[in-house]
Amino acid sequence: MKTMHPQINAIIVAVDDLERSRAFYQDLGWPGGEVRGAEFPATERDAAGKIVRFALPGGQAFILYPRRDQARDAGVHNPPEANAVEFVLEHNVRSRQEVDEVMRHAEAAGATITSVARERPWGIYSGYFQDPDGHLWQITHDPRLRTELA
Amino acid sequence: MKTMHPQINAIIVAVDDLERSRAFYQDLGWPGGEVRGAEFPATERDAAGKIVRFALPGGQAFILYPRRDQARDAGVHNPPEANAVEFVLEHNVRSRQEVDEVMRHAEAAGATITSVARERPWGIYSGYFQDPDGHLWQITHDPRLRTELA
Repeated sequence: MKTMHPQINAIIVAVDDLERSRAFYQDLGWPGGEVRGAEFPATERDAAGKIVRFALPGGQAFILYPRRDQARDAGVHNPPEANAVEFVLEHNVRSRQEVDEVMRHAEAAGATITSVARERPWGIYSGYFQDPDGHLWQITHDPRLRTELA
Repeated sequence: MKTMHPQINAIIVAVDDLERSRAFYQDLGWPGGEVRGAEFPATERDAAGKIVRFALPGGQAFILYPRRDQARDAGVHNPPEANAVEFVLEHNVRSRQEVDEVMRHAEAAGATITSVARERPWGIYSGYFQDPDGHLWQITHDPRLRTELA
């Protein structure tokens, strides 16, 4: 039986308002954010295909998809209320100062700060914010990290 | 003001039972899955730091974090019920047959199939399953995709 490679090609997040969320990520400084799939309206069988796509390193994509369409395409009926803590996207930066700067930038773009940047017990300095749909981002400086950062 | 690079270094998902979810991803064939941070128990101020980490390509990490600790670390109080459709992780493979194989493998590992693999209007062949915590994966063959796949 074919095993599944540990690889994520796209992170697709549910949004209530495609344009609002698109504007937020563009305000954060993300290039791109083009609308795709607008030519696929919802049908009796299928969800609409309209999304917003941002390119990430390594060919990965960050995709905004209207909540109702995402649930329908995934075959999930009567989904419960939105829940902010299902997942966190972590973004590493090179210094504490850069954590503070990105947090300020996000707040100016309309993010809600849920946890002010501070040192965590496991040796990182990080803060959390929520995007307009409540999705959590953790902005982190980890002095042990040797990963190459953009 | 520092802008934020379009880069995601870790995808951290909330789980109800760390060992159950770890076993699921290991059964899918993912190498690693080591426990980290067990030396940081919860304190009055901080969540516990125990996580499970899987390495992804390009230095990215897929991290399982107990739901309550994640909410606490993120500063989100009284989070609502779990919601399966907040996000979808998409995994691309090279053929329709491979989609079917990965879906079968996931089901055998305990996944719940929510949308059987089929052709979607936007030219892809994909199916969706939920992991033990309800997190959605879309397994996709996109014949237009030129990204290098593992």
